[in-house]
Amino acid sequence: MSLRCSVLAVGTELLLGQIIDTNSSWMGEQLAANGIGSLMQIKVGDNHDRIVAALRYLLGEADAVIICGGLGPTHDDITRQAVAEVMGSELVHDEAVAEVIRQMFLGRNRVMAEINLRQALVPVGATIIPQTRGTAPGLICPVGDKVVYCVPGVPHEMRDMVERAIVPDLKVRSGDPSVIASRVLRTWGDSESGLNERLQPVIDRLEALGNPTLAFLASGWEGLKVRLTAAAANQVEATALLDSWDGEVRSLIGDQVFGTDDDTMESVVLEVLRQRGLTLGVAESVTGGLVSGRLTAIAGASDVLRGGVVSYASEVKFDLLGVTPGPVIRESTAIEMARGVRKVLGADVGLALTGVAGPAEQDGMPVGTLCVGIALADGTTDALTARLPGQRQVMRELSVITALDFLRRRLG
Amino acid sequence: MSLRCSVLAVGTELLLGQIIDTNSSWMGEQLAANGIGSLMQIKVGDNHDRIVAALRYLLGEADAVIICGGLGPTHDDITRQAVAEVMGSELVHDEAVAEVIRQMFLGRNRVMAEINLRQALVPVGATIIPQTRGTAPGLICPVGDKVVYCVPGVPHEMRDMVERAIVPDLKVRSGDPSVIASRVLRTWGDSESGLNERLQPVIDRLEALGNPTLAFLASGWEGLKVRLTAAAANQVEATALLDSWDGEVRSLIGDQVFGTDDDTMESVVLEVLRQRGLTLGVAESVTGGLVSGRLTAIAGASDVLRGGVVSYASEVKFDLLGVTPGPVIRESTAIEMARGVRKVLGADVGLALTGVAGPAEQDGMPVGTLCVGIALADGTTDALTARLPGQRQVMRELSVITALDFLRRRLG
Repeated sequence: MSLRCSVLAVGTELLLGQIIDTNSSWMGEQLAANGIGSLMQIKVGDNHDRIVAALRYLLGEADAVIICGGLGPTHDDITRQAVAEVMGSELVHDEAVAEVIRQMFLGRNRVMAEINLRQALVPVGATIIPQTRGTAPGLICPVGDKVVYCVPGVPHEMRDMVERAIVPDLKVRSGDPSVIASRVLRTWGDSESGLNERLQPVIDRLEALGNPTLAFLASGWEGLKVRLTAAAANQVEATALLDSWDGEVRSLIGDQVFGTDDDTMESVVLEVLRQRGLTLGVAESVTGGLVSGRLTAIAGASDVLRGGVVSYASEVKFDLLGVTPGPVIRESTAIEMARGVRKVLGADVGLALTGVAGPAEQDGMPVGTLCVGIALADGTTDALTARLPGQRQVMRELSVITALDFLRRRLG
Repeated sequence: MSLRCSVLAVGTELLLGQIIDTNSSWMGEQLAANGIGSLMQIKVGDNHDRIVAALRYLLGEADAVIICGGLGPTHDDITRQAVAEVMGSELVHDEAVAEVIRQMFLGRNRVMAEINLRQALVPVGATIIPQTRGTAPGLICPVGDKVVYCVPGVPHEMRDMVERAIVPDLKVRSGDPSVIASRVLRTWGDSESGLNERLQPVIDRLEALGNPTLAFLASGWEGLKVRLTAAAANQVEATALLDSWDGEVRSLIGDQVFGTDDDTMESVVLEVLRQRGLTLGVAESVTGGLVSGRLTAIAGASDVLRGGVVSYASEVKFDLLGVTPGPVIRESTAIEMARGVRKVLGADVGLALTGVAGPAEQDGMPVGTLCVGIALADGTTDALTARLPGQRQVMRELSVITALDFLRRRLG
């Protein structure tokens, strides 16, 4: 049986719903990806007795507990004291940690209030996880043959310590010398049950083998992720295993795979255009600027994207983009918008969206109708009509990714 | 002491981080707003023994537990069985519930698989919370003098049952006959410590009175919310109390309050324009369409917003908007863009944004620089330069709200 790790998130603001606890979810994902079991995750307020009780409760069944938050310098931050009590240890001042904290303040040209040295208190018997981003160090605290890890609640500090120190320590404790590596294939265009059906032959073979494993992860309206997780003796073998099964998956659903890992639909579209040396102009009606807003979220978009026209009023479509006056929820309108925006912005490729986000139908077309038009430099055009589900905001977000995927396939 | 309620969220997908548990956070917020204490929130997988153990653990200290998820029809859905075990009850078929489920399928023209009738199993001694949106009813399950509420994990079904049945039941159990009402004042333009300082006289008076209470809630980069929560004998008195303290708060920070409750910066800006009978055109560079994207998220934006130009490439600023060629991170550029977009789109008011989102500086201006320009129909213009913090995405989001707030104040 694999090592089992629970999570305790500390902070009254979490219980009151003032902050959503995304840290625990992220840790659960990391643990699973590294072959470590998750038993339970608890949120508790800044209350000494309740932190101690919850920690003892979790240690009753789990091999390890990550406790997150409450390591700051104020009187609310009582995680150190609670963990020391569970360890049966005293807190002592660690001069090396204190010196790092003093240097951090010096480096930022800020005066250090004495209270910050509370973060240099360490339970006897604990090991430090050096702080590289914030002032509070993490702690590795043995409790009998089990272990409690303390990390700050600031997400980037927490993530750094989990990746750098805690997952490796858990791997050692698990006695499993294998390297775990995973790859996410980003897909767009099918439901989970549809993907499941098409991938069934691969799923059956992987279930028989047990390694790699395959999982579907939802990613909002950004499609489904197919995650392959491989265990192997070393990184090279793990990568080879992933490459091989990545190929098997693509042989079945390759048309729907638009990228891997950190790729997004917008980064992929920009890269396809960049490789072909093409610039882009976007004309948007129903999405009101969301397509160009998404593309410009990527640093370096400026070498591909000339800009966009948000032709929300019909007259803007007619007057600025040269669309023939009349109903505007038509493929012909989308094509005229795409041609118009190419010309107005001096772009090689024009992409245009017109549609009905609701609440009411428009030009005789129902809510959810999306028309996408593409105009290329050689004069060719292409168009697509989709019937999208969902309320206004969902329909608009689905329109963005539908249009970008259409452009990707047209150019690909 | 107030009644205390804990939450148990059930679902292996929550532990694995495949879904973020926003339900518990929402419930914590509702409980707090209704004067009910939160002790602990636990996430647990679809495992009978662990659900039972966690439920018993939570009932050890809390007066009530809301258990969320695991009420569906499949073999993974085992919340009913676990709660029945904790109650010491049998599950029995409830024909009235079964009939509602059958009718729901009929109403949707779908064939009902027999497995759906598992959702008609009810522990002896439990009361039904009728389902109005999904197929699974909620349950109110007495355990000694305490109570366990079961609700589905589908957010809108859960929220409906919490508001309709669980909060009222908890209020009755708490023996507190008062009505609780709250109002959120949306603010923009100050830090939490800054707001705290300016509101200190009101905070001191409210702390002495104890009713209403005042809390600060973060809302990402959308500013800070100031929430007033009043308890009174009836709704009329609660509203009067909120009105009175709303006035006290505004007398101190009125310049920063842009709306209440469900208002957003974009809905407020659209309303200000609508009331003055003005149309708007937006020219965006650094934000790449996010401003018009946000405005068009509001149904009915079309009677105010003509559209926008995303002038991402400098040549688009020069050629289409008539900006004087040269450096473009300047207030003068923002004003020329605003004038240009008014003219190009035929709008009464032009709003423009140019700035540096990074990673590198531009035109000698550092990352984080934002210039906003406004051009009005009478030929007057106004501009603002802000130095915004944050990485690319944060800087861009802060730019959107900074520009909209500038327009709101200029027209207000």
